Amino acid sequence: MTLPVIAVIDAKPEFNDEVELALRDMLLPTRAEGGCLQYELTQDQASSTRWIMVERWQDELALERHLVSAHMDQLGVALSGRIIDLKIYRLNLIA
Amino acid sequence: MTLPVIAVIDAKPEFNDEVELALRDMLLPTRAEGGCLQYELTQDQASSTRWIMVERWQDELALERHLVSAHMDQLGVALSGRIIDLKIYRLNLIA
Repeated sequence: MTLPVIAVIDAKPEFNDEVELALRDMLLPTRAEGGCLQYELTQDQASSTRWIMVERWQDELALERHLVSAHMDQLGVALSGRIIDLKIYRLNLIA
Repeated sequence: MTLPVIAVIDAKPEFNDEVELALRDMLLPTRAEGGCLQYELTQDQASSTRWIMVERWQDELALERHLVSAHMDQLGVALSGRIIDLKIYRLNLIA
Protein backbone atom coordinates (compact mmCIF):
# COMPACT_ATOMS: atom_id res chain seq x y z
CA MET A 1 0.00 0.00 0.00
CA THR A 2 1.39 3.40 -0.93
CA LEU A 3 1.84 6.18 1.61
CA PRO A 4 -0.03 9.46 1.14
CA VAL A 5 1.37 12.48 2.94
CA ILE A 6 -0.16 15.94 3.23
CA ALA A 7 2.02 18.81 4.47
CA VAL A 8 0.36 22.10 5.40
CA ILE A 9 2.73 25.07 5.59
CA ASP A 10 1.52 28.44 6.83
CA ALA A 11 3.99 31.17 5.83
CA LYS A 12 4.52 34.41 7.67
CA PRO A 13 2.94 36.97 5.29
CA GLU A 14 6.14 39.00 5.01
CA PHE A 15 8.06 35.88 3.87
CA ASN A 16 5.38 34.32 1.63
CA ASP A 17 7.39 34.71 -1.59
CA GLU A 18 10.49 33.16 -0.04
CA VAL A 19 8.46 30.23 1.29
CA GLU A 20 6.87 29.64 -2.13
CA LEU A 21 10.31 29.71 -3.75
CA ALA A 22 11.75 27.27 -1.22
CA LEU A 23 8.85 24.86 -1.83
CA ARG A 24 9.19 25.20 -5.60
CA ASP A 25 12.89 24.33 -5.24
CA MET A 26 11.89 21.01 -3.67
CA LEU A 27 9.89 19.80 -6.66
CA LEU A 28 12.60 18.62 -9.06
CA PRO A 29 14.96 16.91 -6.61
CA THR A 30 12.07 15.28 -4.74
CA ARG A 31 10.36 13.98 -7.85
CA ALA A 32 13.71 12.48 -8.87
CA GLU A 33 13.85 10.42 -5.68
CA GLY A 34 13.20 6.70 -5.94
CA GLY A 35 9.78 5.87 -4.49
CA CYS A 36 8.32 9.35 -4.95
CA LEU A 37 5.01 8.75 -6.73
CA GLN A 38 3.53 12.25 -6.35
CA TYR A 39 4.84 15.55 -5.03
CA GLU A 40 2.70 18.56 -5.85
CA LEU A 41 2.74 22.13 -4.60
CA THR A 42 -0.70 23.63 -4.07
CA GLN A 43 -2.00 26.84 -2.53
CA ASP A 44 -5.12 27.19 -0.44
CA GLN A 45 -7.68 29.22 -2.41
CA ALA A 46 -8.85 30.70 0.90
CA SER A 47 -5.39 31.75 2.12
CA SER A 48 -2.51 32.75 -0.14
CA THR A 49 0.00 32.14 2.68
CA ARG A 50 -1.05 28.50 3.12
CA TRP A 51 0.82 26.01 0.99
CA ILE A 52 -0.13 22.36 0.87
CA MET A 53 2.15 19.63 -0.48
CA VAL A 54 0.19 16.67 -1.81
CA GLU A 55 2.52 13.71 -1.70
CA ARG A 56 2.48 9.96 -2.35
CA TRP A 57 5.34 7.62 -1.46
CA GLN A 58 5.99 4.04 -2.46
CA ASP A 59 6.49 3.11 1.22
CA GLU A 60 7.82 4.33 4.59
CA LEU A 61 11.41 3.75 3.49
CA ALA A 62 11.06 6.11 0.53
CA LEU A 63 9.61 8.79 2.80
CA GLU A 64 12.34 8.32 5.41
CA ARG A 65 15.01 8.72 2.73
CA HIS A 66 13.28 11.91 1.60
CA LEU A 67 13.23 13.32 5.13
CA VAL A 68 17.01 12.99 5.44
CA SER A 69 17.83 14.24 1.94
CA ALA A 70 20.08 17.24 1.30
CA HIS A 71 17.24 19.20 -0.33
CA MET A 72 15.05 18.55 2.74
CA ASP A 73 17.81 19.99 4.95
CA GLN A 74 17.96 23.04 2.67
CA LEU A 75 14.18 23.44 2.96
CA GLY A 76 14.48 23.41 6.74
CA VAL A 77 17.00 26.24 6.56
CA ALA A 78 14.95 28.20 4.02
CA LEU A 79 11.76 27.95 6.12
CA SER A 80 13.42 28.68 9.43
CA GLY A 81 11.86 31.79 10.98
CA ARG A 82 9.60 32.27 7.95
CA ILE A 83 6.63 30.08 8.79
CA ILE A 84 3.88 30.23 11.39
CA ASP A 85 2.96 26.56 11.31
CA LEU A 86 3.89 23.28 9.66
CA LYS A 87 1.64 20.21 9.90
CA ILE A 88 2.63 16.93 8.33
CA TYR A 89 -0.01 14.22 8.07
CA ARG A 90 1.24 10.71 7.35
CA LEU A 91 -1.79 8.83 6.16
CA ASN A 92 -3.04 5.29 5.99
CA LEU A 93 -4.79 4.79 2.69
CA ILE A 94 -8.11 3.21 3.71
CA ALA A 95 -10.05 3.01 0.47
CA MET B 1 -6.12 22.76 -14.48
CA THR B 2 -7.68 20.21 -12.18
CA LEU B 3 -8.89 21.07 -8.69
CA PRO B 4 -7.33 19.30 -5.69
CA VAL B 5 -9.36 19.29 -2.49
CA ILE B 6 -8.30 18.06 0.94
CA ALA B 7 -10.96 17.55 3.62
CA VAL B 8 -9.86 16.98 7.21
CA ILE B 9 -12.54 15.49 9.46
CA ASP B 10 -11.94 15.10 13.19
CA ALA B 11 -14.48 12.67 14.65
CA LYS B 12 -15.70 12.67 18.23
CA PRO B 13 -14.00 9.56 19.67
CA GLU B 14 -17.29 8.00 20.73
CA PHE B 15 -18.62 8.29 17.15
CA ASN B 16 -15.43 7.36 15.27
CA ASP B 17 -16.86 4.14 13.79
CA GLU B 18 -19.99 5.89 12.57
CA VAL B 19 -17.93 8.66 10.98
CA GLU B 20 -15.70 6.13 9.22
CA LEU B 21 -18.76 4.29 7.91
CA ALA B 22 -20.37 7.51 6.67
CA LEU B 23 -17.16 8.44 4.82
CA ARG B 24 -16.86 4.95 3.35
CA ASP B 25 -20.43 5.26 2.08
CA MET B 26 -19.37 8.32 0.07
CA LEU B 27 -16.75 6.51 -1.98
CA LEU B 28 -18.83 4.68 -4.59
CA PRO B 29 -21.39 7.36 -5.41
CA THR B 30 -18.73 10.09 -5.46
CA ARG B 31 -16.35 8.16 -7.69
CA ALA B 32 -19.29 7.62 -10.07
CA GLU B 33 -19.78 11.36 -10.46
CA GLY B 34 -18.68 12.98 -13.70
CA GLY B 35 -15.51 15.01 -13.14
CA CYS B 36 -14.39 13.13 -10.05
CA LEU B 37 -10.76 12.21 -10.75
CA GLN B 38 -9.76 11.03 -7.27
CA TYR B 39 -11.64 10.49 -4.04
CA GLU B 40 -9.73 8.59 -1.39
CA LEU B 41 -10.38 7.98 2.30
CA THR B 42 -7.28 8.11 4.45
CA GLN B 43 -6.63 8.07 8.19
CA ASP B 44 -4.00 10.07 10.01
CA GLN B 45 -1.37 7.68 11.36
CA ALA B 46 -1.00 9.99 14.35
CA SER B 47 -4.70 10.18 15.19
CA SER B 48 -7.21 7.42 14.53
CA THR B 49 -10.10 9.88 14.81
CA ARG B 50 -8.79 12.12 12.03
CA TRP B 51 -9.94 11.22 8.55
CA ILE B 52 -8.60 12.96 5.48
CA MET B 53 -10.27 12.82 2.08
CA VAL B 54 -7.80 13.28 -0.76
CA GLU B 55 -9.78 14.53 -3.73
CA ARG B 56 -9.22 15.74 -7.28
CA TRP B 57 -11.90 17.32 -9.44
CA GLN B 58 -11.96 18.07 -13.15
CA ASP B 59 -13.03 21.66 -12.39
CA GLU B 60 -15.06 23.90 -10.05
CA LEU B 61 -18.32 22.83 -11.70
CA ALA B 62 -17.70 19.17 -10.91
CA LEU B 63 -16.98 20.02 -7.28
CA GLU B 64 -20.06 22.24 -7.01
CA ARG B 65 -22.23 19.40 -8.35
CA HIS B 66 -20.70 17.09 -5.75
CA LEU B 67 -21.44 19.51 -2.93
CA VAL B 68 -25.17 19.55 -3.76
CA SER B 69 -25.46 15.80 -4.39
CA ALA B 70 -27.87 13.57 -2.45
CA HIS B 71 -25.01 11.53 -0.98
CA MET B 72 -23.34 14.76 0.23
CA ASP B 73 -26.60 15.69 1.99
CA GLN B 74 -26.68 12.25 3.60
CA LEU B 75 -23.08 12.72 4.77
CA GLY B 76 -24.05 15.99 6.40
CA VAL B 77 -26.80 14.23 8.34
CA ALA B 78 -24.55 11.31 9.27
CA LEU B 79 -21.77 13.60 10.57
CA SER B 80 -24.07 15.97 12.40
CA GLY B 81 -23.18 16.01 16.10
CA ARG B 82 -20.47 13.39 15.56
CA ILE B 83 -17.48 15.48 14.57
CA ILE B 84 -15.28 17.96 16.38
CA ASP B 85 -13.96 19.74 13.31
CA LEU B 86 -14.20 19.75 9.52
CA LYS B 87 -11.73 21.68 7.37
CA ILE B 88 -12.06 21.77 3.61
CA TYR B 89 -9.13 23.10 1.60
CA ARG B 90 -9.85 23.99 -2.03
CA LEU B 91 -6.46 24.18 -3.66
CA ASN B 92 -4.81 25.84 -6.61
CA LEU B 93 -2.45 23.38 -8.22
CA ILE B 94 0.77 25.39 -8.53
CA ALA B 95 3.29 22.86 -9.81
